[in-house]
Amino acid sequence: MKYLIIGADAAGLSAANRIRSKTDGKITVMEKGRFISYAACGMPYFIGNEIDNYEALLGRSVEYFKKKNIDILTETEAVKIDRLNKIVFCRGKTDKIAYDKLLIATGAEPFVPQISISSEKVFTLKTIDDSIKIKNFIKKNAPKKVTIIGAGAIGIEMAEQFNRIGLSVLMIERLPQILPIIDSDMAETIQNYLTEIGIRIRTETSLQTIEESKNIKIVTDNGEFDTDFVLLSVGVKPCSNLAKSSGIKLGYKGAIAVDRSMKTSDDAIYAAGDCAETYHKLLGNRFIPLGTTANKQGRIAGLAMTGIDVKFAGVVGTAILRCFDMGVARSGIGVDQAALENIPVASVTIKSESKAHYYPTTKKVTLRIIFKSDGTVVGAEIIGGGVERINPLAMAIAHSMKLDELYKQDFAYSPPYSPVWDPILVAAYEGMKKL
Amino acid sequence: MKYLIIGADAAGLSAANRIRSKTDGKITVMEKGRFISYAACGMPYFIGNEIDNYEALLGRSVEYFKKKNIDILTETEAVKIDRLNKIVFCRGKTDKIAYDKLLIATGAEPFVPQISISSEKVFTLKTIDDSIKIKNFIKKNAPKKVTIIGAGAIGIEMAEQFNRIGLSVLMIERLPQILPIIDSDMAETIQNYLTEIGIRIRTETSLQTIEESKNIKIVTDNGEFDTDFVLLSVGVKPCSNLAKSSGIKLGYKGAIAVDRSMKTSDDAIYAAGDCAETYHKLLGNRFIPLGTTANKQGRIAGLAMTGIDVKFAGVVGTAILRCFDMGVARSGIGVDQAALENIPVASVTIKSESKAHYYPTTKKVTLRIIFKSDGTVVGAEIIGGGVERINPLAMAIAHSMKLDELYKQDFAYSPPYSPVWDPILVAAYEGMKKL
Repeated sequence: MKYLIIGADAAGLSAANRIRSKTDGKITVMEKGRFISYAACGMPYFIGNEIDNYEALLGRSVEYFKKKNIDILTETEAVKIDRLNKIVFCRGKTDKIAYDKLLIATGAEPFVPQISISSEKVFTLKTIDDSIKIKNFIKKNAPKKVTIIGAGAIGIEMAEQFNRIGLSVLMIERLPQILPIIDSDMAETIQNYLTEIGIRIRTETSLQTIEESKNIKIVTDNGEFDTDFVLLSVGVKPCSNLAKSSGIKLGYKGAIAVDRSMKTSDDAIYAAGDCAETYHKLLGNRFIPLGTTANKQGRIAGLAMTGIDVKFAGVVGTAILRCFDMGVARSGIGVDQAALENIPVASVTIKSESKAHYYPTTKKVTLRIIFKSDGTVVGAEIIGGGVERINPLAMAIAHSMKLDELYKQDFAYSPPYSPVWDPILVAAYEGMKKL
Repeated sequence: MKYLIIGADAAGLSAANRIRSKTDGKITVMEKGRFISYAACGMPYFIGNEIDNYEALLGRSVEYFKKKNIDILTETEAVKIDRLNKIVFCRGKTDKIAYDKLLIATGAEPFVPQISISSEKVFTLKTIDDSIKIKNFIKKNAPKKVTIIGAGAIGIEMAEQFNRIGLSVLMIERLPQILPIIDSDMAETIQNYLTEIGIRIRTETSLQTIEESKNIKIVTDNGEFDTDFVLLSVGVKPCSNLAKSSGIKLGYKGAIAVDRSMKTSDDAIYAAGDCAETYHKLLGNRFIPLGTTANKQGRIAGLAMTGIDVKFAGVVGTAILRCFDMGVARSGIGVDQAALENIPVASVTIKSESKAHYYPTTKKVTLRIIFKSDGTVVGAEIIGGGVERINPLAMAIAHSMKLDELYKQDFAYSPPYSPVWDPILVAAYEGMKKL
């Protein structure tokens, strides 16, 4: 049996390991770039010098896999899948590889606005090479001002890191709110917080062109902004062109359509990670690119490719990010999202403390629980301190727990960790009053 | 209807508030001490100057309750319950109070070893006044050495605080391990950590006498130790003498026996908080004194006293404490405890990181999951960083979740908060291999 995997990061390598744990078939992984097994989520902290060397972001080496009899071909790009003859044509260290089972794990790539940009002062951030380029640019040119186009999670993480190394930061967001993964009023709190810190933010502002003379000029429908360099961070799209051009069915927002075993419309071909759909327990298949999901899907795909009957358990849309000293976390369905999806919900929002109110390092926390009319918890959002509390809430959402059951949980209490009434319990209790 | 409550802290005042939310009957609360509504769990941090004033530990005032038409009589001690005539005799601001429904919320008190100790240099720590006494003693006498008898949670919290203010700390523990709420091997890791910091610890060492001349001499079966003052911290026992002498049935380890509505053997009398039994979902009624449980039981007792049909949901024995830079958390049943209770279990222990391995502030974490032969999670212990992870584990235990279900949870991932594979998921996965 010949297993071929396109893409040597979270999903691809998790699959390779799972296949190897079950079979001694031939496993080949091809990777377009020069790095494998890298922690893309750590790149902002590398650029902001919280992490000194990008090598810290590299996980397992080609040699590690070699020892497990898994061949990795870096700088080798798949260009065509001949599904009839089960051959992938490629460019790089070889020109074609035959397969019995194929996994597409090509990831996602940054959206780039439909304007012609040729400047070497305009960056995206997806690969380790991207992060090295940005860091080198800063080192060489000592810029003072950066403009980030897009105020999503990565835009905000990068705003923090650029601020950390002394840059003046402007964020430009097309939508009326920053961070669309959370409700607009919660996002407003974060926007005010960022503004206080000195991050300038323009919402409802669409990029029109980027002009370059001595400096860079950002032209928008809401004014022009002078800057030293630009980070485009307007979201990502699945790298699904290879699949599409081979006649494999695409699904939600152009992600490769998969079933719960991560199989595509072709019985011999699987897809996992950011290029594929993600099964959301409450919403069905969606496009939710995330490193942790890629790892999980890769494991499932690998096992399924060896013939084992497994299903991806699904996600509930849990996400967390640090925004300076404020944490932001969400899971399930938000109030705004529920309205868009026509799901009738109610919600409760409480303000509390992350630790005992008298404990010196306590932080304010705002915690929202979204629930159905029968009290079933369907979503949660937290901003402030102690946002790791999203995990018990994600469990409640995944298990359709009701508010009164959530209120009964025996959560840990000690002043350095929690108020005597944990904010989750307070919110559940207040929510119960609304039923 | 006349409601009488003995004890004006977590359980008693939670009950008073719940009763008031449901009825306009007369509510009286009597309190032996001069303080009400105080955060006992915060006292170590007050003694160690993390919190400057004990006033920060005081919650709601007598006036707050007065406005809600709840009368609080401080410095008034119940001495006898005449159950036949429904009268409580007391000493202090009045000598008797009649009731229709009575709540006993008298709390717990420190065990004091059966040796005659009259020194003013030997302390216990239960009330705010105790903490003020200790703090004043230190201020006045500038001691250099303290000996803590008992290495449980409070002993360890106090060791940290005494160390923090420059004292040399010796801990003496009768048992072979410190911190008996966790498994002995986990406790050993903590003991080694404390020893490295400079806390001296003698286990399997029983106190025999405390002699006082110019200084204090601790005489044990394992040597004599010279010290400037002593904190006795060998655990607490329920304050159940009043109940016992009134013919109310006692239960586990002398705690007042209660049903799930917190009712005692007398239909008109309830008990809640540290003086009463606590229903443990896996083990039945136990003695587990804890502030957060007292609050919950107080709410239940209050509602039940007004005739509402409610039941205390129960705990799973979740506990957390900070030990210098190391966290310690547990829930459910440990391996050692399972052996004592004759419950057959297996366990898995993994070592991981609290955050992404490359993230600067990550800490080592050791996480253990205890499970039955069918994979049902019955316990968990965590030491190191990110010990708030005990809360999702407490949920898994409370809901008899199996390892494979736990492994499927959609936990939050971002480098400043978690490795890409959350330690809980890693442990669940490794545990599944043992089934």
